[in-house]
Amino acid sequence: MAKINQGFLNLKENYLFIEIGRKVREYTEKNPEKPIIRMGIGDVTLPLAPAVVAAMEKASAEMGVKETFRGYEDSGRGYLFLREAVAGYYKGMGAEIDADEVLISDGAKSDCGNFTDIFSADSVVLVSDPVYPAYVDSAIMNNKKVIFADATEETGFAPVVPKGAKADIIYLCSPNNPTGSVFTAEQLRGWVDYALENKAVIVFDAAYEAFISEAGLPRSIFAVEGAKRCAIEIGSLSKTAGFTGTRCGYTVIPKELEFYSGNGESLSVLKYWLRRQGSKFNGVPYVIQRGAEAVFTPEGQKQTRESIAYYMENARIMSATFDELGIPFTGGKNSPYIWFKCNMPSWDFFDLLLREKQIVGTPGVGFGKNGDGWFRLTAFGTRENTVEAMKRVKEMLQK
Amino acid sequence: MAKINQGFLNLKENYLFIEIGRKVREYTEKNPEKPIIRMGIGDVTLPLAPAVVAAMEKASAEMGVKETFRGYEDSGRGYLFLREAVAGYYKGMGAEIDADEVLISDGAKSDCGNFTDIFSADSVVLVSDPVYPAYVDSAIMNNKKVIFADATEETGFAPVVPKGAKADIIYLCSPNNPTGSVFTAEQLRGWVDYALENKAVIVFDAAYEAFISEAGLPRSIFAVEGAKRCAIEIGSLSKTAGFTGTRCGYTVIPKELEFYSGNGESLSVLKYWLRRQGSKFNGVPYVIQRGAEAVFTPEGQKQTRESIAYYMENARIMSATFDELGIPFTGGKNSPYIWFKCNMPSWDFFDLLLREKQIVGTPGVGFGKNGDGWFRLTAFGTRENTVEAMKRVKEMLQK
Repeated sequence: MAKINQGFLNLKENYLFIEIGRKVREYTEKNPEKPIIRMGIGDVTLPLAPAVVAAMEKASAEMGVKETFRGYEDSGRGYLFLREAVAGYYKGMGAEIDADEVLISDGAKSDCGNFTDIFSADSVVLVSDPVYPAYVDSAIMNNKKVIFADATEETGFAPVVPKGAKADIIYLCSPNNPTGSVFTAEQLRGWVDYALENKAVIVFDAAYEAFISEAGLPRSIFAVEGAKRCAIEIGSLSKTAGFTGTRCGYTVIPKELEFYSGNGESLSVLKYWLRRQGSKFNGVPYVIQRGAEAVFTPEGQKQTRESIAYYMENARIMSATFDELGIPFTGGKNSPYIWFKCNMPSWDFFDLLLREKQIVGTPGVGFGKNGDGWFRLTAFGTRENTVEAMKRVKEMLQK
Repeated sequence: MAKINQGFLNLKENYLFIEIGRKVREYTEKNPEKPIIRMGIGDVTLPLAPAVVAAMEKASAEMGVKETFRGYEDSGRGYLFLREAVAGYYKGMGAEIDADEVLISDGAKSDCGNFTDIFSADSVVLVSDPVYPAYVDSAIMNNKKVIFADATEETGFAPVVPKGAKADIIYLCSPNNPTGSVFTAEQLRGWVDYALENKAVIVFDAAYEAFISEAGLPRSIFAVEGAKRCAIEIGSLSKTAGFTGTRCGYTVIPKELEFYSGNGESLSVLKYWLRRQGSKFNGVPYVIQRGAEAVFTPEGQKQTRESIAYYMENARIMSATFDELGIPFTGGKNSPYIWFKCNMPSWDFFDLLLREKQIVGTPGVGFGKNGDGWFRLTAFGTRENTVEAMKRVKEMLQK
């Protein structure tokens, strides 16, 4: 008799976005004359850069010609042209990465979720609270134990190494989704030291690194000495180049990163991850990898940076509003998220903001208990909507 | 301390294609003047159909324009336009499938490999011997027990339901890779009955269904009454439309398919698979899904059928050669693989064929013990190479 993996029955029902959807539908049905401004889900709104479109068109045409047609990509890592482009990009962030340590993925989520597959079932996974829900859910599906590191107003929503906790796998995300907080080099140093000491592996989710503009803030964990012995890094073009519907990212697994057999023998993480992917992943389409390559050209960088600048101007407008209102918040400076204190239970504020001002955001408590009383808005909307939304927020929250 | 999932240490090293690569390299270095004909790996050689290229070019352009740009696809199943096209295609195969039962994937391998994730670790996985190695490896990675159903010359290399065996998950592949054998409706009926009786779930890999031309042979397991209560089906455009480098397929999970909790409560497989994918899969690029949609238009069907006819003419030439030589074989008629008896250990024949005739094939023993003494050639090469290879095979094997 075919039986379910018990881990799936241990999952909490994920009500957050379903509940938001239900409430918005209900409101819209009752108030069809009041248009909604959506600042809830972190999806981009600007189109792909012209350089990316041109590269995908060219690659599509190549696939229709016998001489330039591509079948299976046989390295199992993704095309070398793209892995070299990513390695070059890392150089610009102060990290030396070999192209053979770069694995092309279909975006951050798959590798974030699947990575714990190669670890023993009795591994302890540490995540922050609040946290991006997919880290927790995928760990529970894999029957791993999950422990939490608190991130609170007192720490600027940076998760703090929990004293005495023994974690084997650690998820960190900076700039953070949902809180927009960004690790300083010193904070990251602390986590790397903890991981090295405990022989733990850090999964560093750098999906929002391109939004960091402040000098001195690390955009890659590999900018920290020793990180190559204790961390992998997950990058994505979803937010940095508008690839949410185009699907391409990369995972960096250093050659020197090791984990252990039951009797303490050290083993290469990269080797076993490649073995997993060889049986369970098909690679990213040639056409898409050519589009991704174009992101890393000077022209592609210029064009995608313009889109990022547009979103960050939205974030600046939002930050200025909350500064003016004197409301505590994180994010908005080196991150496309604004995470602010709403001074009431998050869901109450959600209802109020929808009812009074027709703005949809995300209740902080949906990301963990430390998120209650906080609220997330994204900077990925249009300028007009952002300006209008901030006008309404000001009307509502001005004392 | 981060420890490995023990399943990965239970994997056999997969030497098959590595060993083939090594031997071919060695031979080429010593004999640079003798060009090799490759009939080993099942990769296609004809370019994408013009309708597919045009659709991808159009979709690429759409992604560069704000009004037609696409971000996240929010159903978690793939775009409805493609799911409806697949459901329509199933109608033509005599199977009623709802578009909501179709999940767009990046090709057959990922879902084949990941599917057992949602099943209990004590599940027993049944595969045939010989078998496509990824089924076995992914099951072992998931710490499942693997048992085998023999497929031998006596059964025409159709795996036979093993009497008394209790399997929870069953992998079937028809037309089969590597043996080219195709289930009759009656044989498939036998497996469906076994699965219903044992409350097992069949994973039916139909990646090669488009190569079936003989009337009466089932192209989908859902053509068999009752299969929707015990099977999922995995389809792929890799071989049927030349998508090995373009990456798109589909998995059909019927709404009525159930598995069980530890205390026997029945649960929807589709529901839990969607839950897994929600945390661990990013979906297929919009541009690629538009290319895949074009495969199912009348124009796309006409063009891709021409490529299939080209490969099947290769297969006919190969079949005729082995018929003429009086050598037993399966496949070649409704399948792009020829699986023939080589009358010596498979690796010896590999060496002989390479050394004497510069042809690379795949030793049958690489797919399981029942494959020893057998050898696989693919029909995916060019016409010229296929004709030349068969001339050489005839010279070598003629009595």
